[in-house]
Amino acid sequence: MSSAFKNCKTLMVTGASRGLGLQMVESLATGTCSPGKIIATARDPGGAAALRRLAEKFPNLHIVALDVVSQESIEKAAQEVDQLVREDGLSCLINNAGINVVANFETVTAEKMLENFHTNAVAPLMITKAFLPLLKRAAARGTGMGVHRAAVINMTSLLGSVELNWGERANSFKWYPYRTSKSALNMVTRCMAVDMEADGILCMALHPGWVRTDMGGPQAPLSAEESISSVLSVIGGLSEKDHGSFLHYTGEPLPW
Amino acid sequence: MSSAFKNCKTLMVTGASRGLGLQMVESLATGTCSPGKIIATARDPGGAAALRRLAEKFPNLHIVALDVVSQESIEKAAQEVDQLVREDGLSCLINNAGINVVANFETVTAEKMLENFHTNAVAPLMITKAFLPLLKRAAARGTGMGVHRAAVINMTSLLGSVELNWGERANSFKWYPYRTSKSALNMVTRCMAVDMEADGILCMALHPGWVRTDMGGPQAPLSAEESISSVLSVIGGLSEKDHGSFLHYTGEPLPW
Repeated sequence: MSSAFKNCKTLMVTGASRGLGLQMVESLATGTCSPGKIIATARDPGGAAALRRLAEKFPNLHIVALDVVSQESIEKAAQEVDQLVREDGLSCLINNAGINVVANFETVTAEKMLENFHTNAVAPLMITKAFLPLLKRAAARGTGMGVHRAAVINMTSLLGSVELNWGERANSFKWYPYRTSKSALNMVTRCMAVDMEADGILCMALHPGWVRTDMGGPQAPLSAEESISSVLSVIGGLSEKDHGSFLHYTGEPLPW
Repeated sequence: MSSAFKNCKTLMVTGASRGLGLQMVESLATGTCSPGKIIATARDPGGAAALRRLAEKFPNLHIVALDVVSQESIEKAAQEVDQLVREDGLSCLINNAGINVVANFETVTAEKMLENFHTNAVAPLMITKAFLPLLKRAAARGTGMGVHRAAVINMTSLLGSVELNWGERANSFKWYPYRTSKSALNMVTRCMAVDMEADGILCMALHPGWVRTDMGGPQAPLSAEESISSVLSVIGGLSEKDHGSFLHYTGEPLPW
């Protein structure tokens, strides 16, 4: 893992009870250069046994309850995190929580489209808005751009690339709600990058690869460890040039 | 206007009570090469005075009630249109109905995001699904691709281009709900293009320009007549090469 996180005072990951979010928190907590404070959010911390075991071992890991589609929960979490990070603010927000409401052209409904859009595109926007004062506080005393100052990372997907949804690639994963929600998240990322630039807060979208998690399924080529090792290396190395970008977990740019 | 519509037997435009939808219907009805049947939908036909005046003059123009965010209304409209077009099916569906729920980073809420997404991205999908049997019927007896056979045109916006939302262009129109809904519509367009290709149904996304309508405002550079003259010329000339594309009203391709 990149040593860049040694300069990252406080970091928050949403959807950390399982899958890539849990792996991210574990890799960061056990790494040689762990952020000063790691905040891991879960909708139901009581049911997040693996995350709670990690928190017992690592005193810099804090669990906060966050239901990403509830504005009340978002505001409560922001207050709680404010108390945890205090004058440091929040150096890195990783909007990782996401769902895949599987539906093709035949089975898709308005309700499925709205549900996936809410969790995957609207929630990262509303969370970033609520945590903006904390991000600004962290950004106020740094220079340049990156996790040493303040950054918002939206975990998106290559399946959200409208350009790549064509030809051979388009014939698998015909998931209307998921693909649409990730395209929408990419636009949200770009809008927020424009709006947070003046405060020195980096914002970008990152595709973690196709990973063997509950969501990715057993046939995926990457283990969670492999994906997150690369993802954290990319995040740790982000700078001005990556502001507003859409990157593959290998660090290569992806087309919108 | 393009003479290509002389081979278009039946055409439907959603959101035809005002703005670009009304202009489209008027230009088509009064053109020298009008489609055989024009179906103009409006949420509230009773309140659509200008549209009703047109329908009194042109017997090939039919008004159908359609509330694009109501599944019940969509299905009812599909049955009604089925009775109107019968064995001809539907040759051209123009998903034009759209709204702009104006909100910037500061004022955006989850509700505003969901409302704009539902009308601008989900509705065109659910409408196209409901009208698919009619589109297939029209496509079954044609060859090639275009409005002479069967086509779905999604009226999108350049503001939905994630790539173009950067630099100078990004500093105006910081409309989170609208931009996001149009990016989502672009992905919906591409997904449907993939799924309807085997049936010979063309599907693409079209930007009508910035037009002096209720939505576009008085400072827009284009009149509705100018925009729609160009839009109809592009639609009339669509062929295989335009399947799955995102075009400017001038016919130039736009980046996603």
